[in-house]
Amino acid sequence: SKSSKKKTPPVSVTSIIDGLKRLYNEKLKPLEVTYRFNDFVSPPLTNSDFEAKPMVMLLGQYSTGKTTFIKHLLRCNYPGAHIGPEPTTDRFVVVMSGPDERSIPGNTIAVHADMPFSGLATFGGAFLSKFECSQMPHPLLDQITFVDTPGVLSGEKQRTQRTYDFTGVISWFAAKCDLILLLFDPHKLDISDEFKRVIASLRGNDDKIRVVLNKADQVDTQQLMRVYGALMWSLGKVLNTPEVVRVYIGSFNDKPIEEAAAGPLGQDLFEKEQDDLLMDLMDIPRKACDRRINEFVKRARAAKINAYIISHLKKEMPSMMGKAKAQQRLIDNLQDEFGKVQREFHLPAGDFPDVQHYRETLSGYNIDKFEKLKPKMIQAVDDMLGYEIPELLKNFRNPYE
Amino acid sequence: SKSSKKKTPPVSVTSIIDGLKRLYNEKLKPLEVTYRFNDFVSPPLTNSDFEAKPMVMLLGQYSTGKTTFIKHLLRCNYPGAHIGPEPTTDRFVVVMSGPDERSIPGNTIAVHADMPFSGLATFGGAFLSKFECSQMPHPLLDQITFVDTPGVLSGEKQRTQRTYDFTGVISWFAAKCDLILLLFDPHKLDISDEFKRVIASLRGNDDKIRVVLNKADQVDTQQLMRVYGALMWSLGKVLNTPEVVRVYIGSFNDKPIEEAAAGPLGQDLFEKEQDDLLMDLMDIPRKACDRRINEFVKRARAAKINAYIISHLKKEMPSMMGKAKAQQRLIDNLQDEFGKVQREFHLPAGDFPDVQHYRETLSGYNIDKFEKLKPKMIQAVDDMLGYEIPELLKNFRNPYE
Ligand SMILES: Nc1ncnc2c1ncn2[C@@H]1O[C@H](COP(=O)(O)OP(=O)(O)OP(=O)(O)O)[C@@H](O)[C@H]1O
Ligand SMILES: Nc1ncnc2c1ncn2[C@@H]1O[C@H](COP(=O)(O)OP(=O)(O)OP(=O)(O)O)[C@@H](O)[C@H]1O
Ligand SMILES: [Mg+2]
Ligand SMILES: [Mg+2]
Repeated sequence: SKSSKKKTPPVSVTSIIDGLKRLYNEKLKPLEVTYRFNDFVSPPLTNSDFEAKPMVMLLGQYSTGKTTFIKHLLRCNYPGAHIGPEPTTDRFVVVMSGPDERSIPGNTIAVHADMPFSGLATFGGAFLSKFECSQMPHPLLDQITFVDTPGVLSGEKQRTQRTYDFTGVISWFAAKCDLILLLFDPHKLDISDEFKRVIASLRGNDDKIRVVLNKADQVDTQQLMRVYGALMWSLGKVLNTPEVVRVYIGSFNDKPIEEAAAGPLGQDLFEKEQDDLLMDLMDIPRKACDRRINEFVKRARAAKINAYIISHLKKEMPSMMGKAKAQQRLIDNLQDEFGKVQREFHLPAGDFPDVQHYRETLSGYNIDKFEKLKPKMIQAVDDMLGYEIPELLKNFRNPYE
Repeated sequence: SKSSKKKTPPVSVTSIIDGLKRLYNEKLKPLEVTYRFNDFVSPPLTNSDFEAKPMVMLLGQYSTGKTTFIKHLLRCNYPGAHIGPEPTTDRFVVVMSGPDERSIPGNTIAVHADMPFSGLATFGGAFLSKFECSQMPHPLLDQITFVDTPGVLSGEKQRTQRTYDFTGVISWFAAKCDLILLLFDPHKLDISDEFKRVIASLRGNDDKIRVVLNKADQVDTQQLMRVYGALMWSLGKVLNTPEVVRVYIGSFNDKPIEEAAAGPLGQDLFEKEQDDLLMDLMDIPRKACDRRINEFVKRARAAKINAYIISHLKKEMPSMMGKAKAQQRLIDNLQDEFGKVQREFHLPAGDFPDVQHYRETLSGYNIDKFEKLKPKMIQAVDDMLGYEIPELLKNFRNPYE
């Protein structure tokens, strides 16, 4: 049942993840390496990719209470946190568990092999100088990593260009995150152009988005309804999802709810909403585990398809003469070759990689040097998908279901 | 000031309207008739067009409480009203002031010269049999006429075709109305395909639309926020206005607010919202008067432009021979002729009538028989616009400002 699942303690989650890490290294990685999956489709997974905690990213205009929200959950400031009425947080801060309180600068994080942030190096030095990692020992951070972000700008301010690809960075984090919280406050509802670009950069991760209408106790009930209505009115147009996004209405800081404006509504509604959001946050480790299993299985399928393509191309090469011509022909007709592989192995067309990108990578290789199909390697991955992963889930879930 | 304007009693409004009626008959109508404005642009205004009360139309799914809303405002049922959980109102009912309680069937209303509904005859007998007028003596109806409508259908039901042009009728009423209330209830949020067509048929009258989230006391606060949010989310997409529509949240019937579900929120919010809506309704006669003055001025400008066009075409006709050829050339080059008129009299291009429609009407006339420009008639309308109307407004507003 749902409630019993929620009780799955983190140790089981870690063990499923440990199981996946072992399966990756023993079964999937050999297939990826043999057929150059890491060049053609996706870089290899590292231990840090498996070990990273589930991540929650906070986004919103300046002063909507992002840093305060994290402080509220931790019940203390993270090292280097700045809270104030003017734009304060001027960088991306990953708030994570660590043995001591310390801040690590972006340039250092990017070269840390045991942290899953090396991909951010591509955003360059201007970004890395606005990136830092804040570590401290904390029971909540053992479960969840937070990503605090600089306030999205509006009006005059957004014209002063960022010195790095702001939405690119957000898009990178969005893909890695398990939950994305968009914060609004009743006096800052405006969805600026930069905010629209930020929301557009979340595309593909819409199911991770939740909205927080923060500081809801700063206006009276009628104003709150107007503000909330106006927010939903414009979110419906900006977020391109058919499903209505979940909005949590409340005041996420340590101070008691301001009853003067909020009235009895505050007591009732805000507390329920705050509890709901907390429950959703607590549910993240379980969901993150499900998401990783899901992504792992998708990756294994993609690696198999890549192996079929590569070995098919090898098979189509002549054994003696005209190799250069044959290679060129295969590259030119790559779409048709994909079609042949798809029909021969009964694969879904939608699971195939992008032809154009594949063609470009292919032109740097000698197809004749590719490996033939090794059925045993495929079989190992099939066994993993059909037997070992289900077994892993069964062993680590059973005690709690 | 705004508050003093609100106090303008209905007698002044009637008098401004009486003034406009006199000005129409003495100054504007002669110009319209001379240059066939009523054939080319708009039928003549009748006394009933001036005397009609401001109208409020109610729209919404069945059982959202449209008929109950009218009953609530009147504090009694209108003659022939049906209220119930299943689709009950099966016709358009104009609820208006009258000396006795009675219902007049649609076919009779359509031929009544002293009622502004003769235009509805074009929707045919199938519609007229689903149209009725409900009269009673009532102080509120001395100020406002209500239009109760059959519930908009959804799901299975909307497939059973209406026997008349439902959205056409709504569009006709929307143009005549001063306020359009869209009613929703928390259990019927679905904006069906028929509802979407209805909303589309309101286009051009968007500024008249208000939304009522009725029966708000039937769900608890958290549910209400979800429901209200979802409503705004989809209204933002369906109503194509940049401005957020005003939504009144409450329970518009005689029964006291159900505190069980609504909690203390009901007392506070719903009562304020109900008061706001009532204030808006009470403000309609003043606004309706402004709207009519505005439309009257627009009409006078259009009639002048029509006079310039017609007399220009007449002037372009040869005095002796080749009249048929000249007429055809003028019709073919009508756009260019419009351009000449526009430049000669320094008129805004956007105020000109639709060329295609004008051309079609023109082909049924002999341009040579048109009247030359009569500067005195134009001067009379200019005097009306520049002197008599401002004077009218001054005389009848002054005492209250
Ligand atoms: N729930 C709340 N109710 C009232 N005030 C709040 C709330 N949350 C934050 N604040 C106040 O709002 C201001 C901005 O808070 P904070 O610095 O956390 O926002 P931020 O979103 O992190 O801003 P920035 O984007 O500039 O980093 C601070 O003065 C803070 O005390
Ligand atoms: N504010 C309210 N709170 C609770 N119940 C209501 C409220 N308004 C109406 N109702 C109930 O809802 C039902 C439908 O009401 P009503 O007939 O007025 O709706 P309607 O919109 O006119 O429906 P139709 O389109 O079928 O004519 C009735 O049972 C009525 O008593
Ligand atoms: Mg901050
Ligand atoms: Mg009804």
